This record gives sequence, structure tokens and C-alpha cells, in this order.
Amino acid sequence: MKGYVFHGPGQAAWEEVSDPDLKERTDAVVRVDAVTICGTDLHILKGDVPEVRPGTVLGHEAVGEVVEVGGDVRTVRPGDRVLVSCITACGRCRYCREGAYGQCLGGGGWILGHLIDGTQAEYVRVPHADLSVHALPGAVTNEDAVLLADIFPTAYEVGVLNGRVRPGDTVVVVGAGPIGLAAIATARLFAPERIVAVDMAAARLEAARKLGAEAVADAREEPGQLVSDLTEGLGADVVIEAVGVPETFEMCTRMVRPGGHVANVGVHGKPATLHLEDLWIKNLTITTGLVDTHSTPTLLRMVAAGRLPTTQLVTHTFPLDHMAEAYDVFARAADTGALKIVLGGPQREVVAVGAA
Amino acid sequence: MKGYVFHGPGQAAWEEVSDPDLKERTDAVVRVDAVTICGTDLHILKGDVPEVRPGTVLGHEAVGEVVEVGGDVRTVRPGDRVLVSCITACGRCRYCREGAYGQCLGGGGWILGHLIDGTQAEYVRVPHADLSVHALPGAVTNEDAVLLADIFPTAYEVGVLNGRVRPGDTVVVVGAGPIGLAAIATARLFAPERIVAVDMAAARLEAARKLGAEAVADAREEPGQLVSDLTEGLGADVVIEAVGVPETFEMCTRMVRPGGHVANVGVHGKPATLHLEDLWIKNLTITTGLVDTHSTPTLLRMVAAGRLPTTQLVTHTFPLDHMAEAYDVFARAADTGALKIVLGGPQREVVAVGAA
Repeated sequence: MKGYVFHGPGQAAWEEVSDPDLKERTDAVVRVDAVTICGTDLHILKGDVPEVRPGTVLGHEAVGEVVEVGGDVRTVRPGDRVLVSCITACGRCRYCREGAYGQCLGGGGWILGHLIDGTQAEYVRVPHADLSVHALPGAVTNEDAVLLADIFPTAYEVGVLNGRVRPGDTVVVVGAGPIGLAAIATARLFAPERIVAVDMAAARLEAARKLGAEAVADAREEPGQLVSDLTEGLGADVVIEAVGVPETFEMCTRMVRPGGHVANVGVHGKPATLHLEDLWIKNLTITTGLVDTHSTPTLLRMVAAGRLPTTQLVTHTFPLDHMAEAYDVFARAADTGALKIVLGGPQREVVAVGAA
Repeated sequence: MKGYVFHGPGQAAWEEVSDPDLKERTDAVVRVDAVTICGTDLHILKGDVPEVRPGTVLGHEAVGEVVEVGGDVRTVRPGDRVLVSCITACGRCRYCREGAYGQCLGGGGWILGHLIDGTQAEYVRVPHADLSVHALPGAVTNEDAVLLADIFPTAYEVGVLNGRVRPGDTVVVVGAGPIGLAAIATARLFAPERIVAVDMAAARLEAARKLGAEAVADAREEPGQLVSDLTEGLGADVVIEAVGVPETFEMCTRMVRPGGHVANVGVHGKPATLHLEDLWIKNLTITTGLVDTHSTPTLLRMVAAGRLPTTQLVTHTFPLDHMAEAYDVFARAADTGALKIVLGGPQREVVAVGAA
């Protein structure tokens, strides 16, 4: 088969690799029908994730059809259309028993396209299939579903649920890329009074407005003042960090009100400064997290019911074998306006928010 | 009357000041029968809390008798023996309505011995008396009660409740001063599997053991290794920071397990480094906070029932007018073994944990 193989920093190619086989009785092999590219994949290509060995097939998000299952797999069978989640879960360890699948100690967690071959290929082996793939209802298209492999549960769990968004809240989302936009879309489920989106790209702020942000602010023009003005000087109830650099994290801790929540979703490569000399007295709650995907079944029901604007985030589509071109368009998002790119069928006319 | 007056960094004296009068119809004036000194008072004396103006009477913890109340005070009357809480609360603002009295927007919060004259005096005016003093049951001595003005609710709310200690948890308390020891005593109410106390002073670690810490570690000898050994390499479920310097805060974030909680109680004067490059993926919850004292009525019932070892923390007692001497003993805690010092009657023989 063909797959997109990492060959060290800056090098990857769509090339012939071995077909995946069942290795354990709990594995499934899935034919990939739709796949997407994550910002984390770009980090890997830059060399920021050194545990990814050269020779690894990238990708941790897919929709496809089960073609083979091991003897212990109970929840899916060949022919089922499934979502391949970015998180693999043994279901039996201490963390899985608490729904913290992202921290699975039984050989799971984020492993696809990271510690083992991933989904940017024609086929993928999924360990612990019972808890790591989700059978898809017919009402959910491949494009809808593939956005639930990672970005929607990540934005919802690590941003909105960790941030404990409540009705009437002022919610600030710093970073209006795919994760930030998915945080806006899912924060709206809790009826906040207002959502303020912060970014540097006008196109992304426009996309944020279309998804429901009542106010937008340019990150370079002290958005804290706008937030202060909107909240009688108090600050935001919840601030969601969806960028992953020290400056934006520190901005979040300046914009939150006493008693408020800062939910970090961004993937960070450097330490940030925590101004405890100001913050010790402010009753803050700061959370970090890898997604657990415990919400994926709920989000699938919401998509099936037409309650989540998943495909509004899809700006570009490509056939599966155009992987290198898709990576290029995604990496140059500032020029191309790319938000989420879906590879694989069915292709469709794209009319999405934020499209260039 | 006499009071302990701040005259700028390094200067304070027990001297004649004006008797306090009622200023608002919601005020009470209380005769001070017992008072204590807080580490925060030492910070003020060092000049670390610049909003304290010279001329201010220090102190934010007391027990005494109500001598006069304004016309709108409903919950206490002259003659009542009361606890004067470190937190004053209007009861009507947005924060008070949520029980977040420490963040009161109605002229409350921590104001005694900070923004207005405090409790280290023969009499004190307490604004918003209805929610800022607590009538005392007869079973609770003055010495017991005065420890509930600040340190016990602070350790319990900001450390134990914010840290969400659960049965079976491994809890690490970094800093075994009065606040850390009160955190150990109140963490035990939640039946953790074990409590590990970390400090540099052998006497304080011994006090921690007497209050229920199953293990102790010298802060200079990498306590993280002990915690790792005790938890199969995972780390602690809850780490409570009760020191207030960057090094100990950062130590806490290294000792916590994925999915665990770091509850900061320490008063910080400098920023800390938050290693988001390691922590973004760990599902951490970090909390900060000033005490709200919403738990004070509960803690009073627990003391009355003999369920809290409050007075075990009292190492020294003095008459009220020995304030300067008491400050000296408290400031030299490393030599004197001082934990909590109570001034005012009744005096008693001291047999306390950690006494030098």
C-alpha cells in the first residue's frame, strides 16, 4: 500500500510501505477513506516531536471501513464504517477506568502516527480496537466524522469542559485556527453571554464570527482592554489558549477574572512565565490536557443531529494520494487560508468559513 | 487603646491609638481577647505589601467580644463571643453570592490589617459584621477559634478543597509551616492513602508526622524520587504548595501525576516558570486562591466535635501587650520552633507539636 512516511525533520513522502497486519487479537485493520492533517503533524515534520522515529507513517485521524479484526474484538466487524480516534485506549488501566483515555497506561494514548504507524495511508492497524474506533451512523458523512477524530473532542474536552464554560459566561478563545474555531463552536453549546475570538489573521477572525464569536480582537492590539471593557473591568470567566506559545498563554492569564478558568489546549514547545506574584490571590484554575476522546460518542450524536458545524471548518479537499500537496497547502495556511484539509472521498464543492 | 501599628518597612510598635468607632450601620466593634500573627504580617513588615499604609494597625485574625453594633447588624449583638475572620464580606456582590467572599467587590475581601486597621489591638472595627464575624459555641476555646480566622480555612479551602483530595490519594504537602500543617490535618478528613510532607526543618517534619503525615522528605534531597517510589512512578494525585517561592512551586509541578492537581496556597512575590513543554499533555489542574472562609462554620463544628487538632499548632502564648516580643519569636521561627503564637488570654501550659 501507499502511506505518508516521515524520514526525519523536513522529510516525508507518499510511498510504498508494507500492508498492516493484525499483531494482537485486539487489533483491527481499517481501510482509510478520509483523513486529515493536524498542526501536530507539522510539529513532527519540524522535528519538534523527537520520539517519532524515521520510517513512521504519520497521521492520527481517519474514517474508513474495517477490513479485518482480531479474535478478541467485540464492538466492530469487517465492513463497518468507523471513525479512527486519535486516542487509542486499552480500557482496563487505572486511567482508562476513569475515562482518561489520553493517559492510558496499557499501550494506548496518542500512539497513531507518533509511536506506531498512523492513518495517512491506504490502510491502518488500530490497536485496542474496541475502544479506539467508533462505528458511524449513516447520517454522519466521512468529512463530518474525520473532524471528530481529534480537533472537536480536543477543543471541547480540553478547552470547553476543562474551562467549565457556563451559561452567561464571557469566554475568550485565543487563537482562531481549527482548534480555536472548534472551541468556539462547542462553547456555544453552553450558552455563554459572549465569545471573544483573538487572532492575528483577519480571515480567521472572520471565520470565528461566522461560527458564533460575538466579538473579535487582533492579538497585537491588547485584547485585554476589550475584554475588560466588556466585563466591567473584571476579566473573562473562561479563557481558552489555542495557540501554544508562551506569549499567548501569558495573555490568557492577564485576561481572566478572579475566580476564572484558563484552559490550555495549545501544544507548547517552551516554558511560560506564571506570574504568581499577581495570580496567587486570584482564585484561578489553570488546566492542561491531552484529549481523552470520552466525548466522541456524544459529539457524533450532535453531528448526526445537525448541532455542530463540523464541515464549516473544511476549506480544502484532495484525493488521498495528493498528501504532499495537501501538507504544503496546510503549512502555508497564512497564504492559502487553509483551516482543515480532508483527503479522500467523497470530494465536494467547498463553501466553508475562512476560505481564502 | 493600644494597638500594633505599622510605620513602614521594618518599623512597628505597640502604642496608643484612637479607639475604633462605628462608621457604618453594618459595623461591629469587637474587644480583642485573643489574636495571632500570620506569615503575611511578616511580609508586610518587610515592605512586600506596599498597599499597607504607615499608621495602619496590623492583624487579620482575632477572637473577642462584641461591644457595639451598627443599626443594620442582625447576626450578633453586644456580649457575643465571636471569631473575627480574616475575610470581610458584603454578602451582596457577585462574588459573595457565589461564596467567593475573598474576592468581595463590596468593600470586603482581605481588608483588616491591610487596607483598614486590623486586629492586633485592644479593639477592632469590623465592617459588614453580619458575614465577617462568627458567633462562637462555648465548646470552642479562644485559642482553638483564633486558628480558624485564617490558617485552617486557608489550608482547607485553598489547599485541600481546591486540590480535590479524594479517598485513596497520595497527597504531598510542600512546606510544613502552620499552613502546611493545617493542610495535613484537614487533608486527613478525606482519607487519603498517604500524606507526604516536604520541608527543610526537621522539627517541622516531626510536627507533620504527629499531625498525620505517613512520610516526610527533606526538600533538599529530591523528594520527587520518594513520591515516585511510593506511586509506582506515577506521581502524587494532589500536591499542595505551602511555601510561596518559585522553586517549591516548580517542585510541585514535577511531583504531580498526569491528571493530578497542584493547589497553590503560598503567597508569592516572584513569578515561577511553568514548564508547559512538559505539562501541556499531562491533564494538570493548577489552582491559586485567597481564602473565602465559606468553610469557617463547618470547621467550627469540627473543632467543637474534637475532630481538628487546632491547638496542636500553638507553640507559644503571650499577653496581648507583648506583641513586639511575639513578633520577634515568630520571625525567628527557625531558632525558636514557633508555629502559631497566640496573644491574649487565657494563657495555658503549652504542649504542642513542633515546639522547640
